This record gives sequence, structure tokens and C-alpha cells, in this order.
Amino acid sequence: MSKPQPVTGDAMSLFGLVQPELNAVDRLIREVLTEEDPMVQRVADYLQQAPGKRVRPGLVLLGGHAARPKPETGRLVPIAAAVELIHLATLVHDDIIDRAETRRGQPALYRAFNEQVAVLTGDFLFARAFQLLAGTGHPEVVAAAADVVHTMCVGEIRQNLDHGRVATEAEYLRRIDAKTAQFLATSCRLGALAVDAPPAVREALTTYGWHVGMAYQLVDDLLDVVADPVRLGKAVAADFQQGVITLPVLYGLERVPEPAALAQALAEAQDPRRHAEAVRLLEQSGALDDVRALAERMAAEAVAALEPVPAGPAREALAVLARFVVVRDF
Amino acid sequence: MSKPQPVTGDAMSLFGLVQPELNAVDRLIREVLTEEDPMVQRVADYLQQAPGKRVRPGLVLLGGHAARPKPETGRLVPIAAAVELIHLATLVHDDIIDRAETRRGQPALYRAFNEQVAVLTGDFLFARAFQLLAGTGHPEVVAAAADVVHTMCVGEIRQNLDHGRVATEAEYLRRIDAKTAQFLATSCRLGALAVDAPPAVREALTTYGWHVGMAYQLVDDLLDVVADPVRLGKAVAADFQQGVITLPVLYGLERVPEPAALAQALAEAQDPRRHAEAVRLLEQSGALDDVRALAERMAAEAVAALEPVPAGPAREALAVLARFVVVRDF
Repeated sequence: MSKPQPVTGDAMSLFGLVQPELNAVDRLIREVLTEEDPMVQRVADYLQQAPGKRVRPGLVLLGGHAARPKPETGRLVPIAAAVELIHLATLVHDDIIDRAETRRGQPALYRAFNEQVAVLTGDFLFARAFQLLAGTGHPEVVAAAADVVHTMCVGEIRQNLDHGRVATEAEYLRRIDAKTAQFLATSCRLGALAVDAPPAVREALTTYGWHVGMAYQLVDDLLDVVADPVRLGKAVAADFQQGVITLPVLYGLERVPEPAALAQALAEAQDPRRHAEAVRLLEQSGALDDVRALAERMAAEAVAALEPVPAGPAREALAVLARFVVVRDF
Repeated sequence: MSKPQPVTGDAMSLFGLVQPELNAVDRLIREVLTEEDPMVQRVADYLQQAPGKRVRPGLVLLGGHAARPKPETGRLVPIAAAVELIHLATLVHDDIIDRAETRRGQPALYRAFNEQVAVLTGDFLFARAFQLLAGTGHPEVVAAAADVVHTMCVGEIRQNLDHGRVATEAEYLRRIDAKTAQFLATSCRLGALAVDAPPAVREALTTYGWHVGMAYQLVDDLLDVVADPVRLGKAVAADFQQGVITLPVLYGLERVPEPAALAQALAEAQDPRRHAEAVRLLEQSGALDDVRALAERMAAEAVAALEPVPAGPAREALAVLARFVVVRDF
């Protein structure tokens, strides 16, 4: 069992072990987002102006390193770049779907250009990702990536057609499984596949990634409600305002004495006073503590899942990452 | 050189040689469009209510048979199904982009459900396609498919951001290259790749497919202007009304004495009298004949390109198909 180090630093320093490869991922993304046509290049440039936290490529790389110390990184870097491009594709499409105003602190792509271009840009990013995956010559890698895109789409179609129905906890968990946990599980799995890890290690990393993904999304949904909107880079309580009930809100509505008052405060959370009121109600009800506790349990299970993975700095980094995910505030 | 038979029958009978495999393609599509969730299944069912002409899977299969008589069809069928799913994905997304009302005689998917579901359904179809392609264990096949999706997206992004600018003939040809010809070329190429055809045959089939694709799109753009809207299954002059200048219209506007009168008639083509007027002006100007002649030259070049392909019924069928493409009226 890896013993987690104290949680320090940010997501970036957690990936310090694989920083050279993360830089190579960034270079490769820049390379595949280079287009002859200047108009198309404007779109490609826009995508790169506000890079994300690189959690998924970081997991591919750390997963590969943990599965096989000193791995051949020739396959890891394109796979890591591909998962980031797939993630970016889903964000571009999700922002159209959710009518999001901003993404990573700048106007969502469909607003900066138009919806048509955003639909096409998502498809373009999927194509670029599958070109990179095909280049690894490893059909299982392509299959794993296609599988997770399928899972995410089915989950979102279901969520959309289900719109307005108040979710149960089980429905919520199924939703974040499809939305996030499967993708983080696949990222770790792809790292293991890339270095031809033994099946037990591959499955262990997949289980680790799934629990980190659940923890990550639980915290994301907490932050959607409680975070400072400036630090978060987007509006607060956006999920609720789009009719999506997340676990903190679900717990809250079940427990506060006046659910309608909470719903009202959430609906008006763009007003900082109403936002503070919603957070106060949720905090008093114990909803936020319970969601935090669940996220912490998921993180602990992630760490426990690492047992079959060879001990070493990459496994340590994964364990620290699982702990970090639940204490982050952005 | 194959000597084309007289053109008879419809697209279906042209694929008669590969009908058993086309039936297997349909079964496989039905299988991969089977979803556990009943709400998601409603979307999957809707996609299958109005099957298309199966031109792309037909080309994969005929290409494979032409490249290697009596081919092992285990790889051809999933690849053929995958190209149809990719085609379907692009149609679902294009209909959102073009605000199309109908597709194949029924309301476009984004109208039957909503835009969000349509964005996700396109992504879902891409994922299903790449799952099938990965299952062939042939990375070159995955790469060829990803390449053509990339090409189509870049072409469409450029077209969208270029909106409103009157195209030149060269720009028009570049557009239909990216939109259709590359995909039909890739369909034939995938057939050759699936059966490990020699490079000369693979390239010959790719060249054939490209010319058929150019001819096909030229005729599509003619039909957009001249066809019976009922037989076509969509509104006439839809391209023009969306600001897309096709070659028949481009030639017409360059040649009619009063371009504004032609533009006006096209803009009002939902009125059958105005539609007849637009067709009369275009016909008198010689624009339609010149587009037909170009389509015929492309079809002839497609047939000529088949020379290195082994003579046999599959090559014959491809030659007939090239001829058929330019005389079809739907």
C-alpha cells in the first residue's frame, strides 16, 4: 500500500514526475492543431488560448509510468494528447448543449465563433484524436477510447432526454460515472495499455482512475455550488440553473426545512448575496459535508486500488493526486 | 479497361453483387444501434427509420471485391458499417448546422428530438464507427477513416467562416472535394485496405472513388436546383437559400443577363412557379449542361482509373455505378 504524502502544491506539480512528457503532449497538441487554412487556424488557436488542467493526459502518463517503471514513452505521449483532444471535443460540444457563456475564463467557442463552427470543431478534435490513436498501431487503445466516447454520449443523451426529472442519488452516481469516472478510468487504462502492463496492474489502474473520477466530479459539483465564480472561471450554480440536479443540491433539497427557499436562492445565485444564502442553507443541512465525505471515501478507495501497482514514485504521485482531488478549490 | 454496361436499375441493384454483405452491414448497424436505455434506443431507432442509399458501404464492399476476387469479408462488413455510421454522424450534425427541416423524408433528428441530443447523437455515431474500425485490428483502416473525418470538418469549418462570399469555380471544387469526393475515395480505399490489396490497386480504387465522389456531388448540387422536391425528400434550392453557392448557380449567375432575377427566383423556389422560372433561366444559360458535362467527365475518369484493378464483375459494377451516378434523378 502506498502511504500518501501530505497534500501540497497544485495539479501541475502533482504531474511533476511526467512534466517532460506533458510538455511533449503540449507540443504534439500544438502540432496537430496546425492547419493550412488561416480561417481554420483561428479556431485551432482559440482552442489553445486557455489550456486546461491536463488531468487526463497526466493520468495517462502517470498510469504508464506506474505500470512499468521507465516506460518507452513513444506511445504514451500521443495517447495522452489524444485523450486531451477528446476531452476538449466534449467540452466544445457540451458548451453548446449547456449554453455555457464561458469556458476556462474566455467565451465558449460557440460564442466566439458560432454554433455551427463549434459542432464541426468538436468533430474535428475527435478526428485528430483518433488519428493520433491510430498512429500507435494498437487497436485496443483505439477501442478503449471509442468505448469511453460512446459511454459519455449515451450518458448525456439519457440526461438530456430525462431533463427536469429530479434525480435520485443512484441516478446521480450513474450520471457522473458516465460523464467523468469512466473517462478518468480509461485514461489510466490507456497508460497501462500503452506500456503493455500485466492485466492485474491494468485493472488496478482502471479501478483507481474510476474512483478518482467519481471523487473529482463530486468535488466539481460541490465547487459549482460553493466556489468563488472568478476562481472557478464560470458562473456558480450553473448546473442547477440548467435543470441539472447534482448531489449537493439533491441532498440539500431533501434536508432543508424549506426546499423552495433553497431552490430560489440557487436560481438567483448570480447575485452574491443569494449565492451566500444558498451556500449557508446547504452547509447547515449537512449536505455539503456528506458530499465531501463521499468524495473522500472515493479518494481513499482509489488509493487502496493501487495495491497491485509496483511501488515507486509514479504510484506515489497517483496516491497524492487522489488526495489532492478532494481538497482542490478550483 | 472495363466496358460499361448500359445503365439500368437503381443504386440498390448496382450493389446486387454485394447484396448479402450489404444485408450483413444492415444487421451490424442494427446491432450497434441497440442500447440498453429505452430513451437512448428511441434515438437509435429514429436513425434507422429512413435508411439511406448505402453508397459508401456499397463502395467499401465493391472496392474490396474488385481488389481481391472472393475476399475474406470478415473485415469488409464492419468497415462498411463504420463508414455508413460516420456518414450518418455527419448528416445529423450537418442538419443542425444547415437548419435542415427534413432528412430522407422525415424531420431532421434535431427537430424530432432537440439540438443537444443531435450533437450528442453525432458523437455517439462517430464512437460506434471507431469501435467497429478498431475491431478490425487494422490501424491503417482507423487512420484512413480519421483522416477523412478531419478533411470533411476542415472543409466545412472553412465553408462556414467563409459564409456569404461568392465562390469561384476553384473554391467550389475544393469544397466538394472535402465534402464528398474524399469520403467516397476513402470508402473505396478502405475496401482495398481491408483485403490487403496491392498498392497500385489501392491507389486506383482511391482515384476511382474520388472521381465518382466529384461526379456524385456535382449531380447532387444539380438536383438541389432542378429536382422534384418530393422525390428528393427535401426542399429545392436549399443550398442557395442557406447562402451556399453551388456550381450550377455560380455558372448561372455568371451567364444570365439578369443575375438578380435568377437570385430572386432561387430565393423563392419553394413556390413551384418561381422554381420553374429559376430552372428555365439556368437551363437557357447553359449552366446546367456545363455542370452535367463536368460530372460526365468525372465519371469517365473514374471508369478510366479502374484500369489497374483486376477485371471481373466487381470492377464492372463499379464502372456501371460511375455511369449511374450522373444519370440518377434522386
